[in-house]
Amino acid sequence: MNSRLKTIEWRNSCARIIDQTLLPEQISYIDVDTLDKMYHAIKILQIRGAPAIGVAAAYGLYLGVRDFNNDADINAFLKHVDDRAEYLASARPTAVNLFWALGRMKKFAHDNSGGGISVNALKKMLFDEANRILDEDRKMCRAIGEYGFELLKDKDCILTHCNAGGLATSEFGTALAPIYVGQEKGVIFKVFADETRPLLQGARITSLELSEAGIPVTVICDNMSASVMATGKIKACIVGADRIAANGDTANKIGTYGVALIAAAHNIPFYVAAPSSTFDLSIPDGTHIPIEERGREEVANWMGTKKTVPDKVMVFNPSFDVTPSKLITAIITEKGAIFPPYVDNIAKLLG
Amino acid sequence: MNSRLKTIEWRNSCARIIDQTLLPEQISYIDVDTLDKMYHAIKILQIRGAPAIGVAAAYGLYLGVRDFNNDADINAFLKHVDDRAEYLASARPTAVNLFWALGRMKKFAHDNSGGGISVNALKKMLFDEANRILDEDRKMCRAIGEYGFELLKDKDCILTHCNAGGLATSEFGTALAPIYVGQEKGVIFKVFADETRPLLQGARITSLELSEAGIPVTVICDNMSASVMATGKIKACIVGADRIAANGDTANKIGTYGVALIAAAHNIPFYVAAPSSTFDLSIPDGTHIPIEERGREEVANWMGTKKTVPDKVMVFNPSFDVTPSKLITAIITEKGAIFPPYVDNIAKLLG
Repeated sequence: MNSRLKTIEWRNSCARIIDQTLLPEQISYIDVDTLDKMYHAIKILQIRGAPAIGVAAAYGLYLGVRDFNNDADINAFLKHVDDRAEYLASARPTAVNLFWALGRMKKFAHDNSGGGISVNALKKMLFDEANRILDEDRKMCRAIGEYGFELLKDKDCILTHCNAGGLATSEFGTALAPIYVGQEKGVIFKVFADETRPLLQGARITSLELSEAGIPVTVICDNMSASVMATGKIKACIVGADRIAANGDTANKIGTYGVALIAAAHNIPFYVAAPSSTFDLSIPDGTHIPIEERGREEVANWMGTKKTVPDKVMVFNPSFDVTPSKLITAIITEKGAIFPPYVDNIAKLLG
Repeated sequence: MNSRLKTIEWRNSCARIIDQTLLPEQISYIDVDTLDKMYHAIKILQIRGAPAIGVAAAYGLYLGVRDFNNDADINAFLKHVDDRAEYLASARPTAVNLFWALGRMKKFAHDNSGGGISVNALKKMLFDEANRILDEDRKMCRAIGEYGFELLKDKDCILTHCNAGGLATSEFGTALAPIYVGQEKGVIFKVFADETRPLLQGARITSLELSEAGIPVTVICDNMSASVMATGKIKACIVGADRIAANGDTANKIGTYGVALIAAAHNIPFYVAAPSSTFDLSIPDGTHIPIEERGREEVANWMGTKKTVPDKVMVFNPSFDVTPSKLITAIITEKGAIFPPYVDNIAKLLG
């Protein structure tokens, strides 16, 4: 029985999440019924991916305030909301979507605290707001999927890199959304997933969520994509994005730029799928995007199990690279697909 | 104290080899003093790499016949040589250089068995022949190194893929030979080594032998080469070869073709270094080179320690790819460097 994995959903008065630390060996769910449990889940990456963390934070904050027991004291409640949000924000100090979702929930609480509203009524409204954040994320993924499907529907075999799938969001993901939309319409794509060293999000996560959903998926090492593309099998590449400059230059997981170069050499279209919130129009081009460097252990010590690089040897471990927009066929957002010339067309759709 | 690792040498009446199964965690030597020990060493990859296996086979055969105790019966001795060679050949049934070296040793024994020669004298001549095989390999590596150095001497930073170094041969290797020759001349190259999934020969072997020799080396994941090349750091790429067609198309470890494409996109010269025995002039181009596919476990189960791909997901694991000669700046052999147009110039140098 194939079914898409549900990264996060509200069920039986709990936020039910997949424990992503156990993937791919075990698909196990956690019923998160307190803010402390959600703090822990976010901190140790039981839930991950910017949009999914936003949804988790919203539900987590609701869980942290739903038992507040002084129905009359709205000011004490607001202070409690702010306190609990501050605590939850410390679970992952670099996760922008965590702060965004908590900020939205806090603002919503304050904006709706007037007119003699009861604490219980405001609690209920906060729960509705968390549901809206989830719902908006689902709609965003679905819109990207629909626009992407229009571009990909005649491409029977697609290569993707890293994981920009449902397990990073609350439903379809971004890069994988057109594939899931296709499945709903009866169009089954074949997918090649780069394993994506050093953390293997492609091998562990992309391949799992696609295979669980019933999509045929083949994992290859990152260095095999060129020879697979040379066979003519791959008809399109699609990846997510971490940050997109005003000219369309795209920062994404390390290795994306290489895939784009290799696709271009074989005249294979290369698509980026990302929500419009990924664009940073204050950055004119990719040279202004700072690239995080991470520690040697990810490369040199396999998942903590086996040393693969001698201690005296240097390791370079950039987490992201920048793909110049000239290598990108289109950028697919929830507002539509953007084609070159990017500076004008990005400004037109999003400006 | 830096020193090049000695893959195989004759010392104290033994063939002394590095136990490559313990690399990179431990640099440990084995004194191989019987044919059975050499059979085992070749079989379990304590020694590997085509040229090194050839040398090991020659010494192994000598070890297997040196205690033959009937000095007068030259025919019984020849039969013993043939028997022992047949046994040793079964250690790795696909290693062409193993058969080549054993065939050469056997032929040498038969060719020199006339004229009433004593068994002891023929034993001594077989030992000399094994030393010649070692010496020829050293000279071949050194010649490739000298020709390669002339092309690379003004390139201060070089990227390589997989391991075509000294640990695959008896001295300098092929792709790494120009770097060692440079060091002898006082020119120290900086090297980036792709880790080379799935078996990590770059991370484990190339980085080890270079760092032991005192060459500064940085390991990167295969998918990082594009972003390192984009920085302008890399001035040339150099790799080995498993088989080269008459038009220069080159089969080498999986990932080589991607490196060549990415180098071309950044106008970085891409060199292949290989002995002339690597050319197969009976093959007009790379489309005629069969590509070995290996099992899923190499990709899906990290060195036997951790499952990284779910069982229900497919894996594709080609061991080699083919780089079209149009992406190759020059092919460096022990007879000289070959430049385009390859069909003519390969025939001229080797035909």
